[in-house]
Amino acid sequence: MKMITAYIRHEAFEPIREELLTKGFPSISVCEVKGSGRQRGITEQYRGSSVTNYLRPKLKLECAVATEDVQAVVDVILQHARTGNVGDGKIFVQAIEQTYRIRTGESGEVTLQLHPEASGEVHG
Amino acid sequence: MKMITAYIRHEAFEPIREELLTKGFPSISVCEVKGSGRQRGITEQYRGSSVTNYLRPKLKLECAVATEDVQAVVDVILQHARTGNVGDGKIFVQAIEQTYRIRTGESGEVTLQLHPEASGEVHG
Amino acid sequence: MKMITAYIRHEAFEPIREELLTKGFPSISVCEVKGSGRQRGITEQYRGSSVTNYLRPKLKLECAVATEDVQAVVDVILQHARTGNVGDGKIFVQAIEQTYRIRTGESGEVTLQLHPEASGEVHG
Repeated sequence: MKMITAYIRHEAFEPIREELLTKGFPSISVCEVKGSGRQRGITEQYRGSSVTNYLRPKLKLECAVATEDVQAVVDVILQHARTGNVGDGKIFVQAIEQTYRIRTGESGEVTLQLHPEASGEVHG
Repeated sequence: MKMITAYIRHEAFEPIREELLTKGFPSISVCEVKGSGRQRGITEQYRGSSVTNYLRPKLKLECAVATEDVQAVVDVILQHARTGNVGDGKIFVQAIEQTYRIRTGESGEVTLQLHPEASGEVHG
Repeated sequence: MKMITAYIRHEAFEPIREELLTKGFPSISVCEVKGSGRQRGITEQYRGSSVTNYLRPKLKLECAVATEDVQAVVDVILQHARTGNVGDGKIFVQAIEQTYRIRTGESGEVTLQLHPEASGEVHG
């Protein structure tokens, strides 16, 4: 089991969320962060002074998946988050040793699965 | 050493925090996130239109513990976060390779311990 | 490759960010969290009642680096985040199995590097 964490532009989130849902990965979490990368800050003129803003707003997207599904999720993120400009962000993959679904107490990979036939369920 | 990360309902946080403190696990961090899971979104009527909200506010709770304490912390979270309804959230356990207590520069498992006799200390 | 996560005081962030940038580690992310540690809460008088606030605002700083650079980044954080008082925070080091730079699709350690000669680039 792996945790995929992506730092992305806000605009990229909705298309990623939609395609992950379509492909059977509805379980995500998202959080506002500020980040800097190789762009190192953007200098603007403000009332006659140069102001350098080193941190830009980003979304931190987290998605826990079975190991066999990592590439599919990474590909969705790469496809929708890439503009080709600096600031597109990064993706990190880290190991998860154990998971629990709180509602049922189930643990392990079953907690990460959404069977295709479950598409319509709202009680799962 | 393990990092336990739980995505929970807001209502579950305070009872979890209290019991973790009582059991000697005072070191937690909490952050507002938005998440979706198997519930896949809630569709509501708003001014005659159907609006589906795919993301629900959750709290992301993090607690770093010695490996031998993982089950105790997971049990506290499961007990207080479970309502039996969709949206109760998930728990993930991940390895931590090294830790540092910034105040003292100490590293390793000692940074995660709170001895029971330390209950009253406010300088530890 | 390692993810370094530090929970620090707000005042510590700017000196840490500046020195990390100077030392060639411009890629960081930061997020507002609330945390508690061994300090266990601060009790104040408010309109005649004792109110204990168990959670204090902290910044969660994340920095992904090549394994050989972990100590350099930890040292920068320890140096600037330490006041010697309770509440200085903690640092955690966790493994990263894979990384991707979204802009280029590159993966692996190259996504974490900033060559010194790239100092002036704004397109990297």
